[in-house]
Amino acid sequence: MQLELLLSAEPARPGDPNGRPGERPARPGGRTARVRAAVRAATLAELGEKGYQGLTVEAVAERSGVHKTTVYRRWGSVEGLIADALELASGEPWPVPDTGDLASDLRALTREVLAGFTDPEAGPVATAFVSAAVQNPAAARALHAFFAARHEQSAPVVRRAVARGELPADTDAAEVVRVAVAPLYYRLFVSGEPIDTAVADRAADAALAAARAGALRTAPPPAGSAAAGSPG
Amino acid sequence: MQLELLLSAEPARPGDPNGRPGERPARPGGRTARVRAAVRAATLAELGEKGYQGLTVEAVAERSGVHKTTVYRRWGSVEGLIADALELASGEPWPVPDTGDLASDLRALTREVLAGFTDPEAGPVATAFVSAAVQNPAAARALHAFFAARHEQSAPVVRRAVARGELPADTDAAEVVRVAVAPLYYRLFVSGEPIDTAVADRAADAALAAARAGALRTAPPPAGSAAAGSPG
Repeated sequence: MQLELLLSAEPARPGDPNGRPGERPARPGGRTARVRAAVRAATLAELGEKGYQGLTVEAVAERSGVHKTTVYRRWGSVEGLIADALELASGEPWPVPDTGDLASDLRALTREVLAGFTDPEAGPVATAFVSAAVQNPAAARALHAFFAARHEQSAPVVRRAVARGELPADTDAAEVVRVAVAPLYYRLFVSGEPIDTAVADRAADAALAAARAGALRTAPPPAGSAAAGSPG
Repeated sequence: MQLELLLSAEPARPGDPNGRPGERPARPGGRTARVRAAVRAATLAELGEKGYQGLTVEAVAERSGVHKTTVYRRWGSVEGLIADALELASGEPWPVPDTGDLASDLRALTREVLAGFTDPEAGPVATAFVSAAVQNPAAARALHAFFAARHEQSAPVVRRAVARGELPADTDAAEVVRVAVAPLYYRLFVSGEPIDTAVADRAADAALAAARAGALRTAPPPAGSAAAGSPG
Protein backbone atom coordinates (compact mmCIF):
# COMPACT_ATOMS: atom_id res chain seq x y z
CA MET A 1 0.00 0.00 0.00
CA GLN A 2 2.68 2.44 0.98
CA LEU A 3 3.19 3.83 -2.47
CA GLU A 4 4.60 7.04 -1.07
CA LEU A 5 7.69 5.05 -0.22
CA LEU A 6 8.35 4.76 -3.91
CA LEU A 7 9.53 8.30 -3.76
CA SER A 8 11.29 8.43 -0.44
CA ALA A 9 13.12 5.10 -0.48
CA GLU A 10 15.23 5.66 -3.56
CA PRO A 11 16.27 9.27 -3.99
CA ALA A 12 17.73 10.35 -7.27
CA ARG A 13 21.49 10.13 -7.33
CA PRO A 14 23.18 13.46 -7.67
CA GLY A 15 25.73 13.83 -10.45
CA ASP A 16 26.01 12.00 -13.74
CA PRO A 17 24.00 8.79 -13.64
CA ASN A 18 25.83 7.40 -16.66
CA GLY A 19 28.65 6.90 -14.19
CA ARG A 20 32.12 8.29 -13.67
CA PRO A 21 34.73 5.56 -13.13
CA GLY A 22 36.51 7.32 -10.29
CA GLU A 23 33.35 8.03 -8.31
CA ARG A 24 32.62 5.83 -5.33
CA PRO A 25 29.18 4.27 -5.83
CA ALA A 26 26.68 5.39 -3.22
CA ARG A 27 25.01 1.98 -3.32
CA PRO A 28 26.25 -1.51 -4.09
CA GLY A 29 25.87 -2.47 -7.71
CA GLY A 30 27.91 0.23 -9.39
CA ARG A 31 27.03 1.84 -12.67
CA THR A 32 24.16 -0.43 -13.62
CA ALA A 33 22.45 0.17 -10.30
CA ARG A 34 23.05 3.91 -10.58
CA VAL A 35 21.55 4.02 -14.07
CA ARG A 36 18.56 2.02 -12.92
CA ALA A 37 18.06 4.30 -9.91
CA ALA A 38 18.32 7.42 -12.04
CA VAL A 39 15.86 6.13 -14.62
CA ARG A 40 13.50 5.07 -11.92
CA ALA A 41 13.69 8.43 -10.13
CA ALA A 42 13.01 10.17 -13.44
CA THR A 43 10.09 7.82 -14.13
CA LEU A 44 8.55 8.66 -10.76
CA ALA A 45 9.07 12.38 -11.22
CA GLU A 46 7.54 12.34 -14.70
CA LEU A 47 4.61 10.24 -13.52
CA GLY A 48 4.01 12.66 -10.67
CA GLU A 49 4.03 15.65 -12.97
CA LYS A 50 2.31 14.30 -16.06
CA GLY A 51 0.48 11.13 -15.08
CA TYR A 52 0.59 7.80 -16.89
CA GLN A 53 -0.86 9.18 -20.08
CA GLY A 54 1.83 11.87 -20.23
CA LEU A 55 4.78 9.55 -19.60
CA THR A 56 7.29 9.16 -22.45
CA VAL A 57 10.58 7.31 -22.74
CA GLU A 58 12.14 10.45 -24.21
CA ALA A 59 11.26 12.60 -21.20
CA VAL A 60 12.52 9.97 -18.76
CA ALA A 61 15.78 9.70 -20.69
CA GLU A 62 16.27 13.45 -20.74
CA ARG A 63 15.39 13.89 -17.08
CA SER A 64 17.60 11.02 -15.91
CA GLY A 65 20.57 12.00 -18.04
CA VAL A 66 20.68 8.43 -19.34
CA HIS A 67 21.03 8.02 -23.10
CA LYS A 68 17.70 7.45 -24.82
CA THR A 69 19.03 4.38 -26.62
CA THR A 70 20.03 2.89 -23.27
CA VAL A 71 16.55 3.45 -21.86
CA TYR A 72 14.92 1.91 -24.92
CA ARG A 73 17.31 -1.05 -24.89
CA ARG A 74 16.86 -1.88 -21.21
CA TRP A 75 13.27 -0.85 -20.53
CA GLY A 76 11.73 -1.04 -23.98
CA SER A 77 8.78 1.22 -23.34
CA VAL A 78 6.80 3.26 -20.87
CA GLU A 79 5.29 0.02 -19.56
CA GLY A 80 8.74 -1.37 -18.89
CA LEU A 81 9.68 1.77 -16.96
CA ILE A 82 6.60 1.52 -14.78
CA ALA A 83 6.99 -2.20 -14.18
CA ASP A 84 10.62 -1.74 -13.17
CA ALA A 85 9.84 1.09 -10.77
CA LEU A 86 7.20 -1.05 -9.10
CA GLU A 87 9.47 -4.10 -9.03
CA LEU A 88 12.14 -2.13 -7.22
CA ALA A 89 9.51 -0.90 -4.77
CA SER A 90 8.24 -4.44 -4.10
CA GLY A 91 11.66 -5.53 -2.95
CA GLU A 92 12.16 -2.68 -0.55
CA PRO A 93 11.55 -3.03 3.15
CA TRP A 94 9.23 -0.52 4.72
CA PRO A 95 8.40 0.19 8.32
CA VAL A 96 5.60 -2.09 9.49
CA PRO A 97 3.88 -0.56 12.52
CA ASP A 98 4.53 -2.35 15.81
CA THR A 99 2.89 -0.39 18.61
CA GLY A 100 2.02 -3.47 20.66
CA ASP A 101 -1.67 -2.96 19.95
CA LEU A 102 -3.54 -4.10 16.85
CA ALA A 103 -5.94 -1.14 16.83
CA SER A 104 -3.04 1.32 16.71
CA ASP A 105 -1.10 -0.76 14.20
CA LEU A 106 -4.03 -0.91 11.79
CA ARG A 107 -4.65 2.82 12.11
CA ALA A 108 -0.98 3.41 11.37
CA LEU A 109 -1.32 1.26 8.23
CA THR A 110 -4.38 3.02 6.88
CA ARG A 111 -2.90 6.42 7.71
CA GLU A 112 0.18 5.47 5.70
CA VAL A 113 -2.06 4.74 2.72
CA LEU A 114 -3.80 8.07 3.28
CA ALA A 115 -0.45 9.86 3.45
CA GLY A 116 0.75 8.09 0.32
CA PHE A 117 -2.15 9.41 -1.73
CA THR A 118 -2.52 12.87 -0.20
CA ASP A 119 1.16 13.81 -0.21
CA PRO A 120 1.61 16.54 -2.85
CA GLU A 121 4.62 14.79 -4.39
CA ALA A 122 3.93 11.11 -3.85
CA GLY A 123 0.16 11.21 -4.27
CA PRO A 124 0.09 11.83 -8.02
CA VAL A 125 2.70 9.10 -8.53
CA ALA A 126 0.71 6.56 -6.54
CA THR A 127 -2.43 7.53 -8.45
CA ALA A 128 -0.57 7.19 -11.74
CA PHE A 129 0.54 3.65 -10.86
CA VAL A 130 -3.01 2.47 -10.19
CA SER A 131 -4.16 4.26 -13.31
CA ALA A 132 -1.43 2.61 -15.37
CA ALA A 133 -2.41 -0.83 -14.09
CA VAL A 134 -5.99 -0.33 -15.22
CA GLN A 135 -4.78 0.55 -18.70
CA ASN A 136 -1.86 -1.75 -19.27
CA PRO A 137 -1.35 -5.47 -18.59
CA ALA A 138 2.39 -5.21 -17.84
CA ALA A 139 1.81 -2.41 -15.35
CA ALA A 140 -1.05 -4.42 -13.86
CA ARG A 141 1.20 -7.43 -13.31
CA ALA A 142 3.81 -5.27 -11.65
CA LEU A 143 1.25 -3.54 -9.43
CA HIS A 144 -0.27 -6.85 -8.39
CA ALA A 145 3.15 -8.21 -7.43
CA PHE A 146 3.77 -5.01 -5.48
CA PHE A 147 0.56 -5.47 -3.50
CA ALA A 148 1.19 -9.17 -2.91
CA ALA A 149 4.53 -8.19 -1.38
CA ARG A 150 2.93 -5.49 0.75
CA HIS A 151 0.23 -7.84 2.00
CA GLU A 152 2.92 -10.30 3.01
CA GLN A 153 5.03 -7.59 4.64
CA SER A 154 2.02 -6.28 6.58
CA ALA A 155 0.94 -9.69 7.82
CA PRO A 156 3.12 -9.60 10.98
CA VAL A 157 0.86 -6.83 12.34
CA VAL A 158 -1.95 -9.37 12.44
CA ARG A 159 0.17 -12.37 13.39
CA ARG A 160 1.51 -10.54 16.42
CA ALA A 161 -2.06 -9.74 17.48
CA VAL A 162 -2.96 -13.41 17.13
CA ALA A 163 0.06 -14.30 19.27
CA ARG A 164 -1.06 -11.76 21.89
CA GLY A 165 -4.48 -13.44 21.94
CA GLU A 166 -6.25 -10.41 20.42
CA LEU A 167 -7.65 -12.36 17.46
CA PRO A 168 -8.77 -15.90 16.59
CA ALA A 169 -5.84 -18.17 15.74
CA ASP A 170 -7.01 -18.82 12.18
CA THR A 171 -7.37 -15.14 11.29
CA ASP A 172 -6.37 -14.47 7.66
CA ALA A 173 -3.66 -11.85 8.06
CA ALA A 174 -3.70 -10.62 4.47
CA GLU A 175 -7.47 -10.35 4.53
CA VAL A 176 -7.39 -8.10 7.58
CA VAL A 177 -4.97 -5.85 5.72
CA ARG A 178 -7.14 -5.87 2.58
CA VAL A 179 -10.31 -5.02 4.50
CA ALA A 180 -8.50 -2.22 6.35
CA VAL A 181 -7.16 -0.48 3.26
CA ALA A 182 -9.88 -1.33 0.71
CA PRO A 183 -12.29 1.48 1.67
CA LEU A 184 -9.59 4.05 0.95
CA TYR A 185 -8.89 2.68 -2.51
CA TYR A 186 -12.61 2.34 -3.18
CA ARG A 187 -13.13 6.01 -2.43
CA LEU A 188 -10.11 7.09 -4.45
CA PHE A 189 -10.60 5.00 -7.58
CA VAL A 190 -14.22 3.89 -7.71
CA SER A 191 -16.70 6.08 -5.87
CA GLY A 192 -14.54 9.21 -6.10
CA GLU A 193 -15.11 10.32 -2.53
CA PRO A 194 -12.68 12.22 -0.33
CA ILE A 195 -10.37 10.51 2.13
CA ASP A 196 -9.04 11.97 5.37
CA THR A 197 -7.84 10.83 8.78
CA ALA A 198 -11.36 10.05 9.98
CA VAL A 199 -11.94 7.84 6.94
CA ALA A 200 -8.60 6.08 7.44
CA ASP A 201 -9.22 5.48 11.15
CA ARG A 202 -12.73 4.21 10.58
CA ALA A 203 -11.51 1.77 7.92
CA ALA A 204 -8.89 0.45 10.34
CA ASP A 205 -11.42 0.17 13.16
CA ALA A 206 -13.87 -1.68 10.92
CA ALA A 207 -11.21 -4.24 9.95
CA LEU A 208 -10.33 -4.64 13.62
CA ALA A 209 -13.94 -5.23 14.62
CA ALA A 210 -14.45 -7.71 11.79
CA ALA A 211 -11.28 -9.62 12.69
CA ARG A 212 -12.17 -9.70 16.38
CA ALA A 213 -15.62 -11.05 15.54
CA GLY A 214 -14.02 -13.89 13.60
CA ALA A 215 -15.31 -12.66 10.23
CA LEU A 216 -11.84 -12.67 8.66
CA ARG A 217 -10.69 -16.22 9.27
CA THR A 218 -8.78 -18.19 6.69
CA ALA A 219 -11.19 -19.28 3.96
CA PRO A 220 -11.05 -22.55 2.05
CA PRO A 221 -9.30 -22.27 -1.33
CA PRO A 222 -11.60 -20.48 -3.76
CA ALA A 223 -13.30 -22.52 -6.46
CA GLY A 224 -14.52 -21.00 -9.70
CA SER A 225 -12.86 -17.69 -8.94
CA ALA A 226 -12.55 -14.89 -11.44
CA ALA A 227 -10.44 -11.79 -11.75
CA ALA A 228 -10.92 -8.78 -14.01
CA GLY A 229 -8.00 -8.37 -16.34
CA SER A 230 -6.73 -5.12 -17.73
CA PRO A 231 -9.36 -4.00 -20.23
CA GLY A 232 -6.61 -3.43 -22.72
CA MET B 1 -22.30 -1.14 -7.61
CA GLN B 2 -24.69 -3.14 -9.72
CA LEU B 3 -23.04 -2.28 -12.98
CA GLU B 4 -24.40 -5.43 -14.58
CA LEU B 5 -27.75 -3.70 -14.56
CA LEU B 6 -26.40 -1.29 -17.11
CA LEU B 7 -26.85 -4.02 -19.63
CA SER B 8 -30.04 -5.63 -18.49
CA ALA B 9 -32.07 -2.55 -17.64
CA GLU B 10 -32.14 -0.90 -21.05
CA PRO B 11 -32.18 -3.42 -23.91
CA ALA B 12 -31.50 -2.18 -27.40
CA ARG B 13 -34.65 -1.23 -29.26
CA PRO B 14 -35.32 -3.42 -32.26
CA GLY B 15 -35.89 -1.69 -35.58
CA ASP B 16 -34.61 1.63 -36.83
CA PRO B 17 -33.56 3.81 -33.90
CA ASN B 18 -33.64 6.95 -36.03
CA GLY B 19 -37.37 6.56 -35.71
CA ARG B 20 -40.26 5.86 -38.03
CA PRO B 21 -43.11 8.29 -37.57
CA GLY B 22 -45.82 5.67 -37.73
CA GLU B 23 -44.20 3.42 -35.15
CA ARG B 24 -45.58 3.38 -31.63
CA PRO B 25 -42.74 4.26 -29.25
CA ALA B 26 -41.85 1.39 -26.90
CA ARG B 27 -41.00 3.89 -24.13
CA PRO B 28 -42.25 7.33 -23.27
CA GLY B 29 -40.17 10.05 -24.87
CA GLY B 30 -40.51 9.12 -28.51
CA ARG B 31 -37.77 9.44 -31.04
CA THR B 32 -35.26 11.26 -28.83
CA ALA B 33 -35.52 8.60 -26.15
CA ARG B 34 -35.21 5.83 -28.74
CA VAL B 35 -32.09 7.38 -30.22
CA ARG B 36 -30.58 7.81 -26.80
CA ALA B 37 -31.38 4.20 -25.87
CA ALA B 38 -29.91 2.90 -29.12
CA VAL B 39 -26.73 4.92 -28.75
CA ARG B 40 -26.38 3.83 -25.17
CA ALA B 41 -26.90 0.16 -25.99
CA ALA B 42 -24.28 0.45 -28.72
CA THR B 43 -21.89 2.20 -26.33
CA LEU B 44 -22.26 -0.63 -23.80
CA ALA B 45 -21.81 -3.30 -26.45
CA GLU B 46 -18.71 -1.61 -27.85
CA LEU B 47 -17.27 -1.11 -24.36
CA GLY B 48 -17.84 -4.76 -23.57
CA GLU B 49 -16.11 -5.93 -26.72
CA LYS B 50 -13.30 -3.42 -27.06
CA GLY B 51 -12.84 -1.72 -23.69
CA TYR B 52 -12.57 2.01 -23.08
CA GLN B 53 -9.43 2.39 -25.12
CA GLY B 54 -11.10 0.77 -28.13
CA LEU B 55 -14.28 2.86 -27.99
CA THR B 56 -14.92 5.20 -30.93
CA VAL B 57 -17.83 7.48 -31.84
CA GLU B 58 -17.80 6.02 -35.33
CA ALA B 59 -18.28 2.44 -34.14
CA VAL B 60 -21.07 3.48 -31.77
CA ALA B 61 -22.81 5.35 -34.58
CA GLU B 62 -22.53 2.42 -36.96
CA ARG B 63 -23.67 -0.12 -34.39
CA SER B 64 -26.62 1.97 -33.21
CA GLY B 65 -27.77 2.91 -36.70
CA VAL B 66 -27.80 6.55 -35.61
CA HIS B 67 -26.17 9.03 -37.96
CA LYS B 68 -22.59 9.81 -36.98
CA THR B 69 -23.26 13.55 -37.15
CA THR B 70 -26.14 13.11 -34.72
CA VAL B 71 -23.93 11.23 -32.27
CA TYR B 72 -21.20 13.87 -32.51
CA ARG B 73 -23.70 16.69 -32.13
CA ARG B 74 -25.44 15.27 -29.06
CA TRP B 75 -22.67 13.38 -27.28
CA GLY B 76 -19.58 15.17 -28.58
CA SER B 77 -17.07 12.44 -27.86
CA VAL B 78 -16.39 9.05 -26.36
CA GLU B 79 -16.41 10.67 -22.92
CA GLY B 80 -19.87 12.06 -23.55
CA LEU B 81 -21.11 8.63 -24.56
CA ILE B 82 -19.77 7.05 -21.39
CA ALA B 83 -21.07 9.81 -19.15
CA ASP B 84 -24.53 9.54 -20.67
CA ALA B 85 -24.67 5.76 -20.31
CA LEU B 86 -23.75 6.11 -16.64
CA GLU B 87 -26.18 8.96 -16.10
CA LEU B 88 -29.02 6.84 -17.44
CA ALA B 89 -27.93 4.00 -15.17
CA SER B 90 -27.85 6.27 -12.09
CA GLY B 91 -31.49 7.14 -12.57
CA GLU B 92 -32.67 3.58 -12.85
CA PRO B 93 -34.19 1.68 -9.97
CA TRP B 94 -32.66 -1.65 -9.16
CA PRO B 95 -33.73 -4.38 -6.79
CA VAL B 96 -32.43 -3.70 -3.29
CA PRO B 97 -32.32 -6.93 -1.28
CA ASP B 98 -34.90 -7.17 1.50
CA THR B 99 -34.68 -10.62 3.08
CA GLY B 100 -35.57 -9.41 6.55
CA ASP B 101 -32.04 -10.10 7.76
CA LEU B 102 -29.05 -7.78 7.39
CA ALA B 103 -26.52 -10.60 7.00
CA SER B 104 -28.44 -12.01 4.04
CA ASP B 105 -29.09 -8.59 2.55
CA LEU B 106 -25.40 -7.67 2.63
CA ARG B 107 -24.41 -10.98 1.09
CA ALA B 108 -26.95 -10.40 -1.65
CA LEU B 109 -25.40 -6.96 -2.29
CA THR B 110 -21.82 -8.20 -2.53
CA ARG B 111 -22.90 -11.15 -4.65
CA GLU B 112 -24.56 -8.71 -7.04
CA VAL B 113 -21.26 -6.87 -7.37
CA LEU B 114 -19.52 -10.19 -7.94
CA ALA B 115 -22.08 -11.14 -10.59
CA GLY B 116 -21.73 -7.76 -12.26
CA PHE B 117 -18.02 -8.22 -12.80
CA THR B 118 -17.92 -11.93 -13.52
CA ASP B 119 -20.80 -12.02 -16.00
CA PRO B 120 -19.29 -12.70 -19.45
CA GLU B 121 -21.28 -9.87 -21.06
CA ALA B 122 -21.65 -7.31 -18.29
CA GLY B 123 -18.27 -7.83 -16.63
CA PRO B 124 -16.13 -6.27 -19.37
CA VAL B 125 -18.52 -3.29 -19.54
CA ALA B 126 -18.35 -2.69 -15.79
CA THR B 127 -14.58 -2.99 -15.90
CA ALA B 128 -14.44 -0.54 -18.81
CA PHE B 129 -16.44 2.04 -16.85
CA VAL B 130 -14.07 1.99 -13.90
CA SER B 131 -11.14 2.05 -16.29
CA ALA B 132 -12.60 5.02 -18.14
CA ALA B 133 -13.08 6.92 -14.89
CA VAL B 134 -9.43 6.50 -14.00
CA GLN B 135 -8.42 7.95 -17.37
CA ASN B 136 -10.95 10.66 -18.00
CA PRO B 137 -12.41 13.39 -15.75
CA ALA B 138 -15.86 13.44 -17.40
CA ALA B 139 -16.20 9.68 -17.06
CA ALA B 140 -14.98 9.97 -13.47
CA ARG B 141 -17.67 12.53 -12.61
CA ALA B 142 -20.33 10.31 -14.16
CA LEU B 143 -19.08 7.21 -12.34
CA HIS B 144 -18.95 9.04 -9.02
CA ALA B 145 -22.54 10.23 -9.46
CA PHE B 146 -23.51 6.67 -10.31
CA PHE B 147 -21.98 5.36 -7.09
CA ALA B 148 -23.48 8.14 -5.00
CA ALA B 149 -26.88 7.11 -6.31
CA ARG B 150 -26.20 3.44 -5.62
CA HIS B 151 -25.03 4.16 -2.06
CA GLU B 152 -28.23 6.08 -1.46
CA GLN B 153 -30.37 3.36 -3.04
CA SER B 154 -28.65 0.67 -0.92
CA ALA B 155 -29.01 2.57 2.34
CA PRO B 156 -32.47 1.14 3.17
CA VAL B 157 -30.81 -2.27 3.69
CA VAL B 158 -28.98 -0.77 6.64
CA ARG B 159 -31.78 1.52 7.81
CA ARG B 160 -34.17 -1.41 8.04
CA ALA B 161 -31.62 -3.29 10.15
CA VAL B 162 -31.34 -0.27 12.44
CA ALA B 163 -35.14 -0.19 12.71
CA ARG B 164 -35.11 -3.90 13.58
CA GLY B 165 -32.61 -3.16 16.35
CA GLU B 166 -29.80 -5.10 14.64
CA LEU B 167 -27.43 -2.15 14.53
CA PRO B 168 -26.66 1.01 16.54
CA ALA B 169 -29.05 3.85 15.72
CA ASP B 170 -26.31 6.15 14.40
CA THR B 171 -24.88 3.59 11.96
CA ASP B 172 -23.69 5.23 8.73
CA ALA B 173 -25.71 3.36 6.10
CA ALA B 174 -23.56 4.36 3.13
CA GLU B 175 -20.39 3.43 5.02
CA VAL B 176 -21.69 -0.09 5.69
CA VAL B 177 -22.31 -0.47 1.97
CA ARG B 178 -18.86 0.92 1.11
CA VAL B 179 -17.09 -1.41 3.54
CA ALA B 180 -19.08 -4.39 2.23
CA VAL B 181 -18.24 -3.84 -1.44
CA ALA B 182 -14.78 -2.22 -1.18
CA PRO B 183 -12.78 -5.46 -0.84
CA LEU B 184 -14.20 -6.67 -4.15
CA TYR B 185 -13.19 -3.50 -5.99
CA TYR B 186 -9.82 -3.52 -4.25
CA ARG B 187 -9.12 -7.01 -5.55
CA LEU B 188 -10.39 -6.22 -9.04
CA PHE B 189 -8.69 -2.89 -9.64
CA VAL B 190 -5.82 -2.55 -7.19
CA SER B 191 -4.33 -5.80 -5.91
CA GLY B 192 -5.46 -7.83 -8.93
CA GLU B 193 -6.66 -10.81 -6.94
CA PRO B 194 -9.51 -13.16 -7.88
CA ILE B 195 -13.03 -12.72 -6.56
CA ASP B 196 -15.58 -15.45 -5.99
CA THR B 197 -18.58 -16.22 -3.81
CA ALA B 198 -16.44 -16.87 -0.75
CA VAL B 199 -14.73 -13.49 -1.16
CA ALA B 200 -18.08 -11.74 -1.63
CA ASP B 201 -19.62 -13.42 1.40
CA ARG B 202 -16.63 -12.70 3.60
CA ALA B 203 -16.69 -9.03 2.62
CA ALA B 204 -20.37 -8.84 3.52
CA ASP B 205 -19.80 -10.62 6.81
CA ALA B 206 -16.92 -8.31 7.69
CA ALA B 207 -19.07 -5.22 7.10
CA LEU B 208 -21.81 -6.77 9.20
CA ALA B 209 -19.44 -7.49 12.09
CA ALA B 210 -17.97 -4.00 11.92
CA ALA B 211 -21.41 -2.39 11.87
CA ARG B 212 -22.64 -4.52 14.76
CA ALA B 213 -19.58 -3.58 16.80
CA GLY B 214 -20.36 0.09 16.27
CA ALA B 215 -17.30 0.73 14.10
CA LEU B 216 -19.36 2.24 11.26
CA ARG B 217 -21.25 4.99 13.03
CA THR B 218 -21.83 8.37 11.45
CA ALA B 219 -18.58 10.34 11.59
CA PRO B 220 -18.28 14.08 12.11
CA PRO B 221 -17.92 16.03 8.84
CA PRO B 222 -14.40 15.54 7.51
CA ALA B 223 -11.92 18.38 7.84
CA GLY B 224 -8.92 18.76 5.57
CA SER B 225 -10.08 15.93 3.35
CA ALA B 226 -8.53 15.13 0.01
CA ALA B 227 -9.55 13.14 -3.03
CA ALA B 228 -7.41 11.89 -5.87
CA GLY B 229 -8.61 13.28 -9.17
CA SER B 230 -8.35 11.59 -12.51
CA PRO B 231 -4.65 11.67 -13.40
CA GLY B 232 -5.58 13.04 -16.78
